[in-house]
Amino acid sequence: MIGYKAKDALQNGWVISETAFDARYLAKFETIFSQGNGYMGLRAATEESYAGERRNLFVAGTFNRFANQEVTELPNAADMLQLDIRLNGIPFHLEKGMIHSYRRELDLRQGELRRDIVWEDGQGAQFKLCFRRFVSMSNLHLLGMRVEITPLTQPAEISIVSGINGQMTNSGAQHFLEGERRIFEKELLQLTAVTSQSNMEFVHTSAHQLYRRGTRLQAYPSPSMERRKVRLTYRVQADAGETISLDKIASVHTSIDADWTGEQNGRPPLAEFARDNLLAAACKGYDQLFEDHAQAWQRRWESTGIEIGSSDDFDQLSIRFAQYHLAIMTPAHDSRFSIGAKGLTGEGYKGHVFWDTEIFILPYFLYTEPGTARKLAEYRYHTLNGARKNALDRGYRGAMYPWESAVTGEEETPEWGPVDVVTGTPTYIWTGKIEQHITADVAYGAWHYYQATGDQEYMDRYGYEIVMETATFWASRLEWNEEKQRYHITDVIGPDEYKEHVSNNAYTNYMAYWNIKKAIECTRRLMQTGNEVYTRLEQKLSLNERLKEWEEKAQRIYLPQPDAESLLIPQDDTYLELQVIDLEKYRNQEQVASILADYSMTQLSDIQVSKQADILVLFYLLEDWFSKEVKAANWHYYEPKTLHDSSLSLSTHSLLACDVHDLDLAYEMFAKAARIDLGTNMHSCDEGIHAASIGGIWKAAIMGFGGVRSWEGMLRLNPMLPNAWERLSFPLYWQGVRLQVTVTRDQLVVERISSEANAGSDLREMNILIHGRPYALKDQLIINSF
Amino acid sequence: MIGYKAKDALQNGWVISETAFDARYLAKFETIFSQGNGYMGLRAATEESYAGERRNLFVAGTFNRFANQEVTELPNAADMLQLDIRLNGIPFHLEKGMIHSYRRELDLRQGELRRDIVWEDGQGAQFKLCFRRFVSMSNLHLLGMRVEITPLTQPAEISIVSGINGQMTNSGAQHFLEGERRIFEKELLQLTAVTSQSNMEFVHTSAHQLYRRGTRLQAYPSPSMERRKVRLTYRVQADAGETISLDKIASVHTSIDADWTGEQNGRPPLAEFARDNLLAAACKGYDQLFEDHAQAWQRRWESTGIEIGSSDDFDQLSIRFAQYHLAIMTPAHDSRFSIGAKGLTGEGYKGHVFWDTEIFILPYFLYTEPGTARKLAEYRYHTLNGARKNALDRGYRGAMYPWESAVTGEEETPEWGPVDVVTGTPTYIWTGKIEQHITADVAYGAWHYYQATGDQEYMDRYGYEIVMETATFWASRLEWNEEKQRYHITDVIGPDEYKEHVSNNAYTNYMAYWNIKKAIECTRRLMQTGNEVYTRLEQKLSLNERLKEWEEKAQRIYLPQPDAESLLIPQDDTYLELQVIDLEKYRNQEQVASILADYSMTQLSDIQVSKQADILVLFYLLEDWFSKEVKAANWHYYEPKTLHDSSLSLSTHSLLACDVHDLDLAYEMFAKAARIDLGTNMHSCDEGIHAASIGGIWKAAIMGFGGVRSWEGMLRLNPMLPNAWERLSFPLYWQGVRLQVTVTRDQLVVERISSEANAGSDLREMNILIHGRPYALKDQLIINSF
Repeated sequence: MIGYKAKDALQNGWVISETAFDARYLAKFETIFSQGNGYMGLRAATEESYAGERRNLFVAGTFNRFANQEVTELPNAADMLQLDIRLNGIPFHLEKGMIHSYRRELDLRQGELRRDIVWEDGQGAQFKLCFRRFVSMSNLHLLGMRVEITPLTQPAEISIVSGINGQMTNSGAQHFLEGERRIFEKELLQLTAVTSQSNMEFVHTSAHQLYRRGTRLQAYPSPSMERRKVRLTYRVQADAGETISLDKIASVHTSIDADWTGEQNGRPPLAEFARDNLLAAACKGYDQLFEDHAQAWQRRWESTGIEIGSSDDFDQLSIRFAQYHLAIMTPAHDSRFSIGAKGLTGEGYKGHVFWDTEIFILPYFLYTEPGTARKLAEYRYHTLNGARKNALDRGYRGAMYPWESAVTGEEETPEWGPVDVVTGTPTYIWTGKIEQHITADVAYGAWHYYQATGDQEYMDRYGYEIVMETATFWASRLEWNEEKQRYHITDVIGPDEYKEHVSNNAYTNYMAYWNIKKAIECTRRLMQTGNEVYTRLEQKLSLNERLKEWEEKAQRIYLPQPDAESLLIPQDDTYLELQVIDLEKYRNQEQVASILADYSMTQLSDIQVSKQADILVLFYLLEDWFSKEVKAANWHYYEPKTLHDSSLSLSTHSLLACDVHDLDLAYEMFAKAARIDLGTNMHSCDEGIHAASIGGIWKAAIMGFGGVRSWEGMLRLNPMLPNAWERLSFPLYWQGVRLQVTVTRDQLVVERISSEANAGSDLREMNILIHGRPYALKDQLIINSF
Repeated sequence: MIGYKAKDALQNGWVISETAFDARYLAKFETIFSQGNGYMGLRAATEESYAGERRNLFVAGTFNRFANQEVTELPNAADMLQLDIRLNGIPFHLEKGMIHSYRRELDLRQGELRRDIVWEDGQGAQFKLCFRRFVSMSNLHLLGMRVEITPLTQPAEISIVSGINGQMTNSGAQHFLEGERRIFEKELLQLTAVTSQSNMEFVHTSAHQLYRRGTRLQAYPSPSMERRKVRLTYRVQADAGETISLDKIASVHTSIDADWTGEQNGRPPLAEFARDNLLAAACKGYDQLFEDHAQAWQRRWESTGIEIGSSDDFDQLSIRFAQYHLAIMTPAHDSRFSIGAKGLTGEGYKGHVFWDTEIFILPYFLYTEPGTARKLAEYRYHTLNGARKNALDRGYRGAMYPWESAVTGEEETPEWGPVDVVTGTPTYIWTGKIEQHITADVAYGAWHYYQATGDQEYMDRYGYEIVMETATFWASRLEWNEEKQRYHITDVIGPDEYKEHVSNNAYTNYMAYWNIKKAIECTRRLMQTGNEVYTRLEQKLSLNERLKEWEEKAQRIYLPQPDAESLLIPQDDTYLELQVIDLEKYRNQEQVASILADYSMTQLSDIQVSKQADILVLFYLLEDWFSKEVKAANWHYYEPKTLHDSSLSLSTHSLLACDVHDLDLAYEMFAKAARIDLGTNMHSCDEGIHAASIGGIWKAAIMGFGGVRSWEGMLRLNPMLPNAWERLSFPLYWQGVRLQVTVTRDQLVVERISSEANAGSDLREMNILIHGRPYALKDQLIINSF
């Protein structure tokens, strides 16, 4: 069904294929074959329609609220892909007739989706159909598709209905008011719509070109309009062996686009602007537009490509699959937006941004595309005012980042979730209220960005303020416990979401402490400089006053300590006293969260079971704060109690398994993590890609086996390849310098790569800690038998 | 594809069948196989889903406005029909595998939809599947469905997902805010929703019962919820030859239901009320519920059934098909609502009420179900205030009925329609502004009701006020033409919608004149009685003043007169001067409005071509105002210029062909009219049934060949059978008395039927004009060689 071997050996490691059609698995391939460019994301629905398909086209940041009682979500834009193809009047449809050959493949190298089919209608006539599709990496608004149809056995009348369909919804929620439907110059369609609450205009435009044997035909398609739809019907006769092809170039523009400055100053309306741009593009023709796009992908792979020499080709493919999806999910063009938990590939999580971005995805960009990392770090500054409002609304000070974030930074978590099978009533979703560690995670992301890039300008403009406002939130959030004479944090959810309403979750307390400590450190440093950044922030935030509070409180935050004997750190106040049950039945299940079929959430609260890495994440984020022994003891205790029912979990555990030198387990977990979306579970990603898991594939490979970490401005490399790998080579940006790291079984090579970006940077020596020993890098460093 | 012969000879003339499945024609069968009871209408979508299906469930009168810029429409309620059936994991789907036998049929006699299939999956396993479905005629809120599955060749795991799906939209427009989704007692589902603007609550409830070989199973289906969806999954093993069946009883209630009095007085919320009612119904079981329903249909057929002895069985079937659809489209339970132009069978015309009701459908009820006719006549009184507002808004007085009417009586015609193929821009819809004859049509309907029923109480409470307020509208609408010294009516659309912005449309002017004359007559009569009705209306409407104005203006309304020589009455001021072209190419086309492919609406304005009967309708409504010679001359002139591009047209022409004694042409037109929905044009009724055409089938048969007319309180019978018919027997209500009329080639029998309804009515003689000669009827009248 799903294949990883390409037809052409050169494509190996680049191509994922579907080798037989099965409508039960539409959603899986729609998700993993998604295309995009960070501006828009297009699910890989087929041209012909099938019941159960999900035709999604999302534009980053265009959130709308369907009704007051609901949270905002990314609205599903009009569909421009669907084609109604009839061959001698018989609808082309893979569940009818006979399929003589079938192959659909996503070519990661050039972001192309291809489908080649030989199909026989119910009456003996055979046809070859080839479909091509791309979402342009060189022009963010553009997508192109081509269909080539060749009657193989006899002449045929080919009819194709192509249009723009604004009847799409988000599982029934319609976010758009109808705009205009227009037909220009016989072959250009346009449909506009406006989001119902956020009042954003969407303009969908598409141009068509019909060819016979490669020669463009003067076509006079019949126009038609229905509600929210505008369409053209092409009808053409083709001889046997004669190929008819239809190229469709389409675009989306919105009124909030960064490249749209509005209608002032004599500029035309957006619809006209979109039309002019599309016409100019369409003039180039499909082939040229595709070439521009493919070159953009090629440049991207040249600068970011990772090579894995593995006995299993799948490993190489999976890291490219991860990079492909990281590229298409990330709005690198616009810092007002960030990455949704499902990227732009499905309705799941409504396009909202979680801690996933800072903790699981940002590292990839920090070390691979620092320019994009800066955009992601800026996003949290753009939403700082919303976070301030959240804090205020709940009686706190500073900035309280939302568990689910959209455009404003205000809390977007829905209040009610699916039915609880035991009680039969919907579950209240507590995360938006009490999964508060996100606020420290955001501060950590900003600091992590600063450490890895050395981007002082970011810190001055944005980063300090984030760190200080989040620290202020924590200072106001702490609860004094008279008996213990310590500050506690009660009634939270930690990363382990199977434990709701716990107190002193270790992850939360440590990260809050880190956040306050970092604010103290930043403030003291700024005070010393006394520069204008300090002056501005002092005026705005009254740093002196805050500093006093931070220092007083930081000293007395309760930080759960390792038990003297067992070295165990309690995950929260009660975890270690809970019942221990046999979890074997629920581990390693294809069905995620299978335990919920047997236990309600309330019952899970009484069992030592974790949905995902919780305390263990600390050992990665704050690695120097814990001894090797403490890490090992807690790893061995908590790992078996973790079900990995969150896609965020496996990659963290894989990486930590490297830290405790269990490379077999690390590789096993990497392999599993790499298959969350790409594996043979045919429904795991129906709702969209697991964005954090995709980031985690890279983390497990590069931060785990590649051993890339940093701590307080120092780059560390602790590479250790799993048995299956012979070689791992990857680009690594560190404080503005691009390195290339190549690890083999007995050698580590670190090269400094000259590039335009590096041309200006001085060639001062760079210090790197490799397996604990300091090295100085100038141009190249070769270490044998590390 | 479509069959009219039943398998069982006894069913002939009662059953319409689909004998092979073709997904291209889903919409046709969804429409003609629709079920309902006037409270709700259910399109006949199949249990399994196909791309392109339209799952519609409408509840009469529940209008909602999606957005301010749009008009109100009937929202598409949640789907409760769809079942996801898997047999050994393979989805049941008729486009895959092999169909060994297939038959779907609508049984008009008992309102049952049946589907029997023997299907082989792709792997050699065969299954028998039988589906049954009804929308209860005895409990307006209820529908029932049954699926029976029998593995024929080997044991099988059968899984069925059944639920309530609130993701439905009206072509993308979502009218509902989400309410609650609940699961009770493991097998009872409930989903509530509220219309977004009109704030009506919908409660959908469904109960399930699973059987093996007829014995109910203790089933523990798995519950699941998605956005706007709640579902159960049944899984059961069946041996070869063993039948598993699932019965699903479902209901819809809304907060505007006439049988719902709200939550006051200790009554439970609507959802609980609905649940209690459904549980009580479900306890009876599918078979009993179906029996109750079938008996209700039986009683209906006994009192309204029409027999046609014809050489073509189709004629008998078609009149029953018409009566079936008239029964399911008409909200006989509630006079706040009337009949949509597509009944309750599709999104077309948004559920709005047109002149179709008074002129094309009301006659059926007047003469067949006068109780229901009264409801329809009352509807226009409930919307009188809206009509007053329309008049006021446009600077007129009195009541101006809307061209498209919903709940309030305010104008609901959308402003913009589909693209004009010549100019490429959308067409402005003028009907809502200037197709004003509707106001006289409504008055005519009220008067017609009164004449046919003698229902003085209706006239006193409602009818007079409608006649007077509409007359007042016309008085204010008339425009004085100084030159001609006459009142003109300029810039209107008559029934012939291919002529926009015409002046002195004969139909409009004559009907306006009739309206004012009728108001004068009613007022004078009331004055003579001086009763409390008069007092009330005089106080409310200042009748004396109005009377003066009516009398002054009525004398001077311009009524186009027959030309002395040709006897032609001009359809409007310019029609007879327009260009005459050869219309042969556009007549008798399957494709309705084929002329619009060659001519724009603007160009049509310059040609003597009519979309539909215009002036000719006058010869039926005001038949005594025109001489036989004038009728004949105009018939012969206008008929060949009429394209019948409206489904309202053919039946009127058929009936008038009878009047000019051209029985062959009348029969030909009847046959065509009867096939508008039921014929072999596989797309004519995709958007829903043609309600007026359905009424027209009855009109052509009973008012045409049966010759039933009335004029000012006198019943007339002018029967004349076409060659194809040997016999026509039909019930006929006249002023509270039920008659049975039987026409054969050489005899007419009119019987007075004793019934409970007639028991109280005195047995005074009744006068009937038969072929122009007066007869007195006491019990029975037999006329030979008429």
